[in-house]
Amino acid sequence: MKLQGIFVPIATPFDRDGELYRAKVKHNVEKWNQTSLAGYVVCGSTGESVMLTAEEKVQLWEWVGEYAAPDKVLIAGTGMESVRETVRLTQRAAELGYKAAMVRTPHYYKNLLHRGEAQAVYFRAVADQAKIPILIYNWPQATGVDIPAETVAELSHHPNIVGIKESSGSVEKVMQLVREVKPGFQVLVGSAPTLAPSLAVGAAGAVLAFANAAPYACITIWEAHRTRETEAALDWQQRIAHPARLVTVRYGVPGLKYAMDLMGYYGGPPRLPLTPPSPEAKREIEEAFRELRG
Amino acid sequence: MKLQGIFVPIATPFDRDGELYRAKVKHNVEKWNQTSLAGYVVCGSTGESVMLTAEEKVQLWEWVGEYAAPDKVLIAGTGMESVRETVRLTQRAAELGYKAAMVRTPHYYKNLLHRGEAQAVYFRAVADQAKIPILIYNWPQATGVDIPAETVAELSHHPNIVGIKESSGSVEKVMQLVREVKPGFQVLVGSAPTLAPSLAVGAAGAVLAFANAAPYACITIWEAHRTRETEAALDWQQRIAHPARLVTVRYGVPGLKYAMDLMGYYGGPPRLPLTPPSPEAKREIEEAFRELRG
Amino acid sequence: MKLQGIFVPIATPFDRDGELYRAKVKHNVEKWNQTSLAGYVVCGSTGESVMLTAEEKVQLWEWVGEYAAPDKVLIAGTGMESVRETVRLTQRAAELGYKAAMVRTPHYYKNLLHRGEAQAVYFRAVADQAKIPILIYNWPQATGVDIPAETVAELSHHPNIVGIKESSGSVEKVMQLVREVKPGFQVLVGSAPTLAPSLAVGAAGAVLAFANAAPYACITIWEAHRTRETEAALDWQQRIAHPARLVTVRYGVPGLKYAMDLMGYYGGPPRLPLTPPSPEAKREIEEAFRELRG
Amino acid sequence: MKLQGIFVPIATPFDRDGELYRAKVKHNVEKWNQTSLAGYVVCGSTGESVMLTAEEKVQLWEWVGEYAAPDKVLIAGTGMESVRETVRLTQRAAELGYKAAMVRTPHYYKNLLHRGEAQAVYFRAVADQAKIPILIYNWPQATGVDIPAETVAELSHHPNIVGIKESSGSVEKVMQLVREVKPGFQVLVGSAPTLAPSLAVGAAGAVLAFANAAPYACITIWEAHRTRETEAALDWQQRIAHPARLVTVRYGVPGLKYAMDLMGYYGGPPRLPLTPPSPEAKREIEEAFRELRG
Repeated sequence: MKLQGIFVPIATPFDRDGELYRAKVKHNVEKWNQTSLAGYVVCGSTGESVMLTAEEKVQLWEWVGEYAAPDKVLIAGTGMESVRETVRLTQRAAELGYKAAMVRTPHYYKNLLHRGEAQAVYFRAVADQAKIPILIYNWPQATGVDIPAETVAELSHHPNIVGIKESSGSVEKVMQLVREVKPGFQVLVGSAPTLAPSLAVGAAGAVLAFANAAPYACITIWEAHRTRETEAALDWQQRIAHPARLVTVRYGVPGLKYAMDLMGYYGGPPRLPLTPPSPEAKREIEEAFRELRG
Repeated sequence: MKLQGIFVPIATPFDRDGELYRAKVKHNVEKWNQTSLAGYVVCGSTGESVMLTAEEKVQLWEWVGEYAAPDKVLIAGTGMESVRETVRLTQRAAELGYKAAMVRTPHYYKNLLHRGEAQAVYFRAVADQAKIPILIYNWPQATGVDIPAETVAELSHHPNIVGIKESSGSVEKVMQLVREVKPGFQVLVGSAPTLAPSLAVGAAGAVLAFANAAPYACITIWEAHRTRETEAALDWQQRIAHPARLVTVRYGVPGLKYAMDLMGYYGGPPRLPLTPPSPEAKREIEEAFRELRG
Repeated sequence: MKLQGIFVPIATPFDRDGELYRAKVKHNVEKWNQTSLAGYVVCGSTGESVMLTAEEKVQLWEWVGEYAAPDKVLIAGTGMESVRETVRLTQRAAELGYKAAMVRTPHYYKNLLHRGEAQAVYFRAVADQAKIPILIYNWPQATGVDIPAETVAELSHHPNIVGIKESSGSVEKVMQLVREVKPGFQVLVGSAPTLAPSLAVGAAGAVLAFANAAPYACITIWEAHRTRETEAALDWQQRIAHPARLVTVRYGVPGLKYAMDLMGYYGGPPRLPLTPPSPEAKREIEEAFRELRG
Repeated sequence: MKLQGIFVPIATPFDRDGELYRAKVKHNVEKWNQTSLAGYVVCGSTGESVMLTAEEKVQLWEWVGEYAAPDKVLIAGTGMESVRETVRLTQRAAELGYKAAMVRTPHYYKNLLHRGEAQAVYFRAVADQAKIPILIYNWPQATGVDIPAETVAELSHHPNIVGIKESSGSVEKVMQLVREVKPGFQVLVGSAPTLAPSLAVGAAGAVLAFANAAPYACITIWEAHRTRETEAALDWQQRIAHPARLVTVRYGVPGLKYAMDLMGYYGGPPRLPLTPPSPEAKREIEEAFRELRG
């Protein structure tokens, strides 16, 4: 299983009442279908998966599966704290035709789960049972747990674990992963602010929240990288730096959804306790995206 | 609504297959019924709530409601990341006769949720809709978010928010809460290693994982406090310090469950990725509890 | 060697040019002489020791030695990163009649020095050579290193290490220290916001920056503790909580110096890069100390 | 003032008694003179500057000044917590012919100094008075303070602040610095494990502890970068990754000194409380450097 290029972890559209908004799922997916994005991750952190019930996740998988162009690789975000629930969701996604499951590191019981061995127990148990391949998903800024590179290296030998989405933003970690994992195991970077250098040091591709609003900028960096136009890649990297930080680190999913609204996608409201950006934040985002389109 | 004394956030019994184990729920609850514990918190962190489906939580609330002695106050752990799911679960608990809901601070999107205002948005929205009173639950060691005392002080004026379980272990935070909240708002401490000093500085009671295995030691400290036998309280505090740390900070829920097995309760296995303690950890726990019984 | 009661880690007076200000050292010390403070710590963190040359430290030790009332115990802050320089300064303090040396945990090379064994190497080497007894000084908020209680317990058996100033503010750490150290080893708490509960759980006394500006409030808590008037102690604790936080955690040494100016001591300017508090901060401090005086 | 290429922050040789070891300073410097290292930083963190007296620093500056080849740029590490002592040392270094001073961010009073404004106050005050240009030195892993990129951008407009040594290892921070500072302000990276990607994103050069033991490997990466042989640069980067981590993050200065001994330089013992690596650590270092030379 080959994962390359830019994936978008899609934001989940809600209507005014906070319900899933099917028409807007269709709108967004059909618009992304026209880009050369490699695929869609459905129910990741950007998709507010922690705000969704299991039933809603399944619903989203179905809809996106229906609307996605056939060349797009479909990946389901299925990670839960327990092995059993993660497996259950993964099997549902498999039945719906998803090609892989992206599974977040378990983390609530941090004092126990920060250790690599505990992470290995979890991922082995999930991968042993899952009917589709597993991608490890590491985002220490949200989980408070950073899966060690050595543990990932070890897990890369499991036949049903095929890659990692590494969202720490640490280029050194990406390098270490590239160096230590089994050949063929795919390191995808999950941080737009370090996209170009991560590709330069060997990442196979990326899963970028920022691509919800600005897929072309991300794809441009990817193409520049593929064709070894290093300076163009870095030049674009510097251009996206500010808007990417705004709608990831600084204003998070609500900021990203607002940027999507600006860029012709449907962002809409996040679920409470997330709230739309303040008027000042909106102005800041508007300006940053105006410059990006330049 | 008056919350005083020692509450136990009950561990969830699983059988060999990882299913809820009704007979053992009954066994444990009936044994705790014989103590002067003030009440039961069902589906808190100690109850592995992050490992349970919504259906399983409702099931547990029913069973405990059935087996609990009538003098025990029943509190349901209903916190989820989204306001809507938290409210939905809280209403279910209310229908089942639970007197209050303990609601964990939302925390996944830390960069946004570490701010007091975001926490206030969440708790106000939940409390406005909930049919039973809300207890804030703060455990920064797991969530990575520490709700500021000023925010709690502000929320203490909400008519449907009646207290906080403060599990940080910071006596200074407990003091600050006691000083700043509205009179009548109840500060319960959630850390056995600082029980006696927390009561000394004004906590109204405690919710203690450690009480699953050692209810009498906890109650003894509470009674010593009530009767102003400060030295006896501190003496017992020093006696529980080591075993309490072992089965909370050090070995977590799996360690606590093992200690329950030792003390005549059913602990049993945790859900994966949590795993039973190693043989050395077991010996350490055995020794610590042997000394406690002295 | 018996260390009990309230010690003040004296602020260092500088004149307009940033030079040591002898007349004000005299003024402050003679004013503190009239209180029942137990003694003076000269060149601790509050004394801006990291801003002083070795020559200036010796100068201050001489002056304070000259002005201090004979009943005040004199302690010199002599900690440097290297064992050799710490020993050299400690011998100078001993020659000047100081009764003990307070030695900060070394910490610059955190990746190595956060381990208890490295701390033990340091304190043993210093204590072996020092001509006067050593007090360990632990302030993780500044150093980024928290010496483990087990290491302190081990070091408490060294004949020339007589106590610790524990400034973390963790009451649990104080309890653990009291429980695990050799009888006679003295635990002094270095955090005014947790003074009363720390004394309640067994601290022998305290070294409090806050006592520079408000010695009577600190002594009152100490006396209430000694005479077992627990409620009076806690009541005063709640009264000092806000001003103590302002001039320690929030506005630091510059804030404390401003409070000293308000209370009839000489605070004066800190050394750059520390700068006097802003006008708003000054107003906040004024108000907090006005309330304290009632 | 142009700073380019690889600088070595030289380790300080001590003899058996812990005294400065002049003959070995000469030996090391003369050996480095034969490489194309760009220059020497004398009394940085790797030079155990926190273990040295002011007199010893001046002594080292003299000796290195005497032995250094004329084409090597000489930089003095002069940072102390106070502005006044930093300025005093900087003037001494200027008198001894040093071309620039590298000044560590002040950090002891973290609660105050973590703010960018406080850092700006310090660096402006130092740079206003210094007779030679100032390089900011940021190493948050040791200081616990991370100077914000915006503050550096602001300081880059000061006529006497010419660059920064950024040792956080964050490639994103390097990119942000490169993007935001005044043209001509030089960003040197201080982390061997991220050398190649940092150069790729625009760093002007590097100051690398690792270069004490392995100058050629570092220079090779620099030369590959200069000649746009990106793949060769990354290939070498992966080769140095493990040994570089061992003698920086993992075993620190004592590990580096041991590696220097292996590589024909004099490393010798560190000053207490630093201690030589354990036998296992030594074996690990030996193996890593054997492979490097491989």
